[in-house]
Amino acid sequence: MHTDLVAALDIGGTKIAGALVDDGGSLLVRAQRPTPAREGAEAVMGAVDEVLGELTASPLWGRAGFAGIGSAGPVDAAAGTVSPVNVPGWRDFPLVERVHKTTGGLPVALVGDGVAMTAAEHWLGAARGYDNALCLVVSTGVGGGLILGGTLRPGPSGNAGHIGHISVDLDGEPCPCGSRGCVEGIASGPNIARRALEGGWRPGPDGDASAAAVAVAARAGDPVALASYERAAQALAAGIAATATLADLDIAVIGGGVAGAGDVLFAPLRRSLRDYATLSYLRRLTVAPAVMGTDAGLVGAAAAAIALR
Amino acid sequence: MHTDLVAALDIGGTKIAGALVDDGGSLLVRAQRPTPAREGAEAVMGAVDEVLGELTASPLWGRAGFAGIGSAGPVDAAAGTVSPVNVPGWRDFPLVERVHKTTGGLPVALVGDGVAMTAAEHWLGAARGYDNALCLVVSTGVGGGLILGGTLRPGPSGNAGHIGHISVDLDGEPCPCGSRGCVEGIASGPNIARRALEGGWRPGPDGDASAAAVAVAARAGDPVALASYERAAQALAAGIAATATLADLDIAVIGGGVAGAGDVLFAPLRRSLRDYATLSYLRRLTVAPAVMGTDAGLVGAAAAAIALR
Repeated sequence: MHTDLVAALDIGGTKIAGALVDDGGSLLVRAQRPTPAREGAEAVMGAVDEVLGELTASPLWGRAGFAGIGSAGPVDAAAGTVSPVNVPGWRDFPLVERVHKTTGGLPVALVGDGVAMTAAEHWLGAARGYDNALCLVVSTGVGGGLILGGTLRPGPSGNAGHIGHISVDLDGEPCPCGSRGCVEGIASGPNIARRALEGGWRPGPDGDASAAAVAVAARAGDPVALASYERAAQALAAGIAATATLADLDIAVIGGGVAGAGDVLFAPLRRSLRDYATLSYLRRLTVAPAVMGTDAGLVGAAAAAIALR
Repeated sequence: MHTDLVAALDIGGTKIAGALVDDGGSLLVRAQRPTPAREGAEAVMGAVDEVLGELTASPLWGRAGFAGIGSAGPVDAAAGTVSPVNVPGWRDFPLVERVHKTTGGLPVALVGDGVAMTAAEHWLGAARGYDNALCLVVSTGVGGGLILGGTLRPGPSGNAGHIGHISVDLDGEPCPCGSRGCVEGIASGPNIARRALEGGWRPGPDGDASAAAVAVAARAGDPVALASYERAAQALAAGIAATATLADLDIAVIGGGVAGAGDVLFAPLRRSLRDYATLSYLRRLTVAPAVMGTDAGLVGAAAAAIALR
């Protein structure tokens, strides 16, 4: 039997998605369950097993040759375990071993969700054709992944490229991670909203106080809303410039809900990048929005499995 | 003829050194000239040619199979050119082509000096046996290089790992590079000395106001001198933690004159690293002093040529 399909899993704090993905990146069979994030380890694994059960019941299952998992982090690819911040029941949970068993012994590749998104954008998205890329997810948190020398580089732990928790402000505000001045603490959606509220911005009649609502106000010219996005852009630019300086990058691709703000984010980001990415070898660095959308996690889990096979 | 030797060149702002290096890292023939750094392009190249002339005159020259260059940066490995900040006569100077010709057509590998030092420490020094390493040179400037997945990763430009010009203080002091709050602007030797002087530290009767003299004062308990090293250590820790977070590192190796301060630097550096390198996958990160000494540039140029062959 020709085993040309990947059994892909995308494990998040709100949903667990699965698919059989072909070698062109098409999702042939899909399944999804809500993540029982407040329940115990076996309840969460039960949801994974249900998703996998739908996939194994498909007549296409026989073509699945290996499995790929992109999971909310941190993950430990070397140990095959995951400890998603938003799924307290899973701490050092042996997900690789469990999926290996449930799938009847398929080889399993595990990476963090930022690395999976990066694999998707490099395979079929905005980073396609670039040999040295950072892809970011800017959302409730800030994650990322790296393509170096044309290849996905998850690092031994599967977490490389985790730009959200590098400090760009060494004396800055404490971060829940224990460090200070992390990119995520300045540039995540909740922090964009918090800063706008602290500056005096108020939500409209619908009460929407999200970063997306701040973006609407910024587009209408609200100076406090604009300033909050500019500060987020500045932190992202400092982090992207640091990564590009260290890793000698061609492109940074930015996805996630906050990237949906469009020019409200990207215009100041491109300006700030000129301030921080100053060395001659960074002249070629470009910035682009992600294009893979909500399926990036599944396509990326498959892409990572293919890349690491 | 067995071509087991590398013709290695170490190009700096004060000296140009060359050697024939064997496959165990021994320097069999050496040559050196002062860098005529204030003269024109051809005068500097003349010094390189004199160094190479001594090597080609050696009876061992016939065993030289390729050439490796580590140069003060920035370099452009893709173009084969160098533009050392401290050698104004060389801007986009086609060093690879010129060395290729002078050596009678040897293949030539070019990397930045921080990358060369990294290759040396990974081959024979403190990073030996580590698959994921950052090596730093903390001196008049701050440079570095990366080992990822067991392999030297100079990046397409040959400058990857250049940690001195990542911003760890996005609102910080302007850096000559055009950015703000760069690691080099806080942690280099001249900045350690400047900060001590600004804080009221005064040199002894010999008038030595170098970072090394500040280290002597710190060892004797001078609080201003200690504080200046602690601030340098904090900036290095933030930069190393950022690099480790992004690249999923096992070890950071620190060399250069400032590392000669020993515990005055390393004790606060290890403390600060615990503050900034907080993610679970960084628990394995260790810090060690470099061991390759003044020959690291030549050994590293050879090691880079071997790694990139």
